[in-house]
Amino acid sequence: MAQESSQVAPRYLTGDKAGLREFLDKFDVFLFDCDGVLWSGDHLFPGTVETLELLRNNGKQVVFVTNNSTKSRADYRKKLEGLGIPSTVEEIFSSSYSASIYISRILQLPENKRKVYVIGETGIEQELRSENVPFIGGTDPAYRRDITPEDYKTIAAGDESILDPEVGVVLVGLDFHMNYLKIALAYHYVKRGAIFLATNIDSTLPNSGTLFPGAGSMSAPLIMMLNQEPVALGKPSQAMMDSIEGKFKFDRSRTCMVGDRVNTDIRFGREGNLGGTLGVLTGVSSKEEFVSGDVRPHAYLDKLSDLLGSQ
Amino acid sequence: MAQESSQVAPRYLTGDKAGLREFLDKFDVFLFDCDGVLWSGDHLFPGTVETLELLRNNGKQVVFVTNNSTKSRADYRKKLEGLGIPSTVEEIFSSSYSASIYISRILQLPENKRKVYVIGETGIEQELRSENVPFIGGTDPAYRRDITPEDYKTIAAGDESILDPEVGVVLVGLDFHMNYLKIALAYHYVKRGAIFLATNIDSTLPNSGTLFPGAGSMSAPLIMMLNQEPVALGKPSQAMMDSIEGKFKFDRSRTCMVGDRVNTDIRFGREGNLGGTLGVLTGVSSKEEFVSGDVRPHAYLDKLSDLLGSQ
Repeated sequence: MAQESSQVAPRYLTGDKAGLREFLDKFDVFLFDCDGVLWSGDHLFPGTVETLELLRNNGKQVVFVTNNSTKSRADYRKKLEGLGIPSTVEEIFSSSYSASIYISRILQLPENKRKVYVIGETGIEQELRSENVPFIGGTDPAYRRDITPEDYKTIAAGDESILDPEVGVVLVGLDFHMNYLKIALAYHYVKRGAIFLATNIDSTLPNSGTLFPGAGSMSAPLIMMLNQEPVALGKPSQAMMDSIEGKFKFDRSRTCMVGDRVNTDIRFGREGNLGGTLGVLTGVSSKEEFVSGDVRPHAYLDKLSDLLGSQ
Repeated sequence: MAQESSQVAPRYLTGDKAGLREFLDKFDVFLFDCDGVLWSGDHLFPGTVETLELLRNNGKQVVFVTNNSTKSRADYRKKLEGLGIPSTVEEIFSSSYSASIYISRILQLPENKRKVYVIGETGIEQELRSENVPFIGGTDPAYRRDITPEDYKTIAAGDESILDPEVGVVLVGLDFHMNYLKIALAYHYVKRGAIFLATNIDSTLPNSGTLFPGAGSMSAPLIMMLNQEPVALGKPSQAMMDSIEGKFKFDRSRTCMVGDRVNTDIRFGREGNLGGTLGVLTGVSSKEEFVSGDVRPHAYLDKLSDLLGSQ
């Protein structure tokens, strides 16, 4: 299939049985954004389970792609299960897993600089452990405290009691326990040469129908202090696409990204030169954005379960 | 005196007795940046006390201008005293005082929107009290806690138990106890219509010879989430110059700003159309920046105490 321009008007497939069949036949792999596509908050959209079943029954590989770094893949599978969606850990690809793969398999860290200083929750820690990456920080209670007058001196002196000389990477994800000390330490690690990574840079996190600080808000103070952007490992960063490809060895031309947001999901698929991108109108982006925005999906649906209309 | 261009090479006055006398005679008021000019960290520069004495003996008004929002003017006077510098509270102008004056005398808040939600330390609280501005947040231990599942719901619902309907201003300063909950609340207050102010937006704070997160780093997550800059009340914001002028009723053409940083102090004086700006080489900016940078002082010295050479 020739690469279509992202400026071409997308095809509207709801109710178009022949169009849906033709579209589905083009792909072997479907990458799914989750919130806004499969469910919203705690509400599973009707037909989600049946649609995934249809795809699997037709031999399609299904991958759940999430920027949520606070949960491990195992935690996320439990969340899917809780919502009634059958899945395996292997079908799940999170930004914390993406970051762990990037650190363990892509970064060539010197022998004595292999430790990661983590700002984030348990999901990141579990995925780093799964790749045998040593780390400090994270949920360690020793970092959940106020900065002290002594800290300023030991940090300024580069004292090994507070700044581990083996840290070669700072990885920042969503941390519900962020504080002044954690930011100060991350700043000094990067100033001393550590690589600055972020699981993702979403500025906000949807919850209870409104928005709360996202992982990008944890990186924001460091970006300002360092005048430096982190390498982000979540959507729409192509570092995440490379990690997914590295794991699933798929043919990009026969892979489709499904999502509700043009600036993350659709952009992620477009910039990754996937064969297809499919927008759904059950989340953030509007029909107008899909039809005439800067980044447009190849096709769109009112809702994911409209794929059942191909039967 | 005609307004000189900030692109003219500054006059080097160290050792130039006639030049020093001529320069001093042009001004009635001297605004002083402190750290890097009068002292560095806990180290008072030799001759600071004598130089201030010389100016006062010659009838000059001295004003200490600081972006430090964590201390009240009374606290700051104690700091000056501890370093051996005689001063009065009236001679001190801090960003927290500047913010308090801006809120109480310049903003026209509706009767039912007069409360300030504070992210910051006791210095801000003391100065708000001095201007009879009601506030919540700040050092209140009720805000020094983790966010709970219940918080997401009450915040999303706009419940008055957690979002005070009388809050009309969010004021963000340096807060050594910043946390996720405080940022979430500030975000929701602004989304509900509150004015977004910052005591200052310095990204870093010097301490122990190195840098730590500054007040700007506290605003950074909000700036990213809201895609909106705060009105800043510290140098180089002219809102601070207007506040200083409102208090001291000085003649700008006969006022000189003394500082070590071109991008804050010298810019502050230049943009405020002061008669003079005087750079000193005991802080951040270099001779090269003074002589050929984008923003240049009218004159510069190796160190402040070189003013004693006018005698």
